[in-house]
Amino acid sequence: MEELILASGSPRRARLLSQIGIPFRVVVSGEPEDTKKTQPADIVRELSAQKAGHVAAGIRDGVVLGADTVVAQDGSVLGKPADRADAKAMLMRLSGAWHSVFTGVTIIAKKDGEARVSTFACETRVKVHELEEREIEDYLDTGDPFDKAGSYGIQGPFAAYVDEIRGDYNNVVGLPAAAVYQELKRLGVIGKDTI
Amino acid sequence: MEELILASGSPRRARLLSQIGIPFRVVVSGEPEDTKKTQPADIVRELSAQKAGHVAAGIRDGVVLGADTVVAQDGSVLGKPADRADAKAMLMRLSGAWHSVFTGVTIIAKKDGEARVSTFACETRVKVHELEEREIEDYLDTGDPFDKAGSYGIQGPFAAYVDEIRGDYNNVVGLPAAAVYQELKRLGVIGKDTI
Repeated sequence: MEELILASGSPRRARLLSQIGIPFRVVVSGEPEDTKKTQPADIVRELSAQKAGHVAAGIRDGVVLGADTVVAQDGSVLGKPADRADAKAMLMRLSGAWHSVFTGVTIIAKKDGEARVSTFACETRVKVHELEEREIEDYLDTGDPFDKAGSYGIQGPFAAYVDEIRGDYNNVVGLPAAAVYQELKRLGVIGKDTI
Repeated sequence: MEELILASGSPRRARLLSQIGIPFRVVVSGEPEDTKKTQPADIVRELSAQKAGHVAAGIRDGVVLGADTVVAQDGSVLGKPADRADAKAMLMRLSGAWHSVFTGVTIIAKKDGEARVSTFACETRVKVHELEEREIEDYLDTGDPFDKAGSYGIQGPFAAYVDEIRGDYNNVVGLPAAAVYQELKRLGVIGKDTI
């Protein structure tokens, strides 16, 4: 397959693409994203489209992938925490309850300057055990929450507190790897069975 | 907390305990496990109890954890594959369908030679995308399937084919990390909130 351009600086998304054997290089536009949408699936679709679009604007040929992740609970959208108090408040909200993680993905395949665009959002439901205040403080002390939507990473020490998920695990990490693979296959970016 | 003894040679189980911050050392008895049970939850509970029991027999004080994982589908139990043909047959069965992963865990806490024993099994449902024959052959070529129950590892390249899970992701990897943490807390091996 041709090399993919990952329009995201997230080391977790890069690791997931590597895990499923998709070659890529990272190009981050540096341009800001912004949305007026209010529904989590709409927000992540639009922000992923902006991330991919900014990078795709600069190329004539190639496949660009953008992604954006938020956490949603009871109508509120939780992004990355502003500070420790914000992270603590988010973790207290997640304690003992279900929430959803939404990742939006946009794939732009350009050939001779013409673009085909595919955008989708993927939801995973996550149930968190009841958290004791000491557990929250210990987790904040690890520094793990501060660069992550919803103030936790499922692939780190917070795994001790995740009771159950429904959906794609890697979507919670930041990229729905299986859905990305299947979509790249559907778009013909990854080869079809030739047997 | 006191150091745990992990009665399993699996590097994946060791990595999961490290991930959630539980200190441990590995002691593998080398004695064979065997069961006449037929239900997956019974099988993994019994085999985990034997693994933990063999190691616990040699100590007066300490906490031993044993675990065993199988894959089950339509009444059949799938262990590690015997060879490439066996692995291919398992992967063809898993293609486009749901199956269950069961991990049994036994924790034996010994003090002055007296033992408290806790055994449980954890089930996670897993839905696999339709696999093309070329995809199965490519996956077999990676060598990843051969040391794994059900012939796949969810944490490797096979992630491209996992559509959805219901339950604990780490249970599919080989150890239900959250359930283990919560049980160690309940047993008092991990300290309670002192605030």
